[in-house]
Amino acid sequence: MRLTKYTDYAMRLMIYLGSRPPGLSSIREISDKFEISQNHMMKVVQDLANAQFLEAVRGRNGGIRLARAANEINLGALLRHTEELSDLIDCQGCRIAPACTLPTVLSEATAAFVAVFDKYTLADLVERRSALGPLLGFGAEHYGEDSIL
Amino acid sequence: MRLTKYTDYAMRLMIYLGSRPPGLSSIREISDKFEISQNHMMKVVQDLANAQFLEAVRGRNGGIRLARAANEINLGALLRHTEELSDLIDCQGCRIAPACTLPTVLSEATAAFVAVFDKYTLADLVERRSALGPLLGFGAEHYGEDSIL
Repeated sequence: MRLTKYTDYAMRLMIYLGSRPPGLSSIREISDKFEISQNHMMKVVQDLANAQFLEAVRGRNGGIRLARAANEINLGALLRHTEELSDLIDCQGCRIAPACTLPTVLSEATAAFVAVFDKYTLADLVERRSALGPLLGFGAEHYGEDSIL
Repeated sequence: MRLTKYTDYAMRLMIYLGSRPPGLSSIREISDKFEISQNHMMKVVQDLANAQFLEAVRGRNGGIRLARAANEINLGALLRHTEELSDLIDCQGCRIAPACTLPTVLSEATAAFVAVFDKYTLADLVERRSALGPLLGFGAEHYGEDSIL
């Protein structure tokens, strides 16, 4: 069982934005950090901006940031947006499809899967920010003197 | 989110064996019905026979059948056997892997997914045998006069 690369990139992007010190990030910076092509990352950014998970600030000093606080970004909502959750098996052309009950079991199982994501927000993924930060090249100084990290 | 073709074929094979009238089936017959290559189906059969989900009877009049009654074949056990359930996202090479908590959410969600399968047996997938049978080319006469179908 696999999630798509698309969800993978979206999760990395959101974790990056949720871990970084306040401010704007560039797509190039995030692509570089994760060694993902800028083209791919651009598509994910545009899509997540359209869906209002993140916000793009235009202009010379522009960049992207989370559209709201990490604890207000539900992971189930994010997963439902990035992942196709209705076709875990391709039944097209299968001769028993009209009478098969496997899709019912699959959709019950998928609902249980997403329900776990629904319990969490992006804040849960970045709670170890003090450990994530250095891995992403954010030095302690970036968090400012008031930082509790 | 997708299950592998391997799980897909294994499920079709088990549904076929659970739907058919008592007796043995050949791999060719099943491959033909589902339009799946005999080579692929052979691998699934060998693997599921080794794992004792089905039984292969050798010899000229040989064939395969379920290793036990459909209601004794748990779908969670079958899924755990056919599907890799530990790597829904490929974290290899990701720089935040040492501090990332997404794998924890993923494994909790996967456990919830499999727990749904655990509630069902193959009997639940073939309960509509009277509808499945004709789709697989089993005429009513195959079920015998005593059939309740």
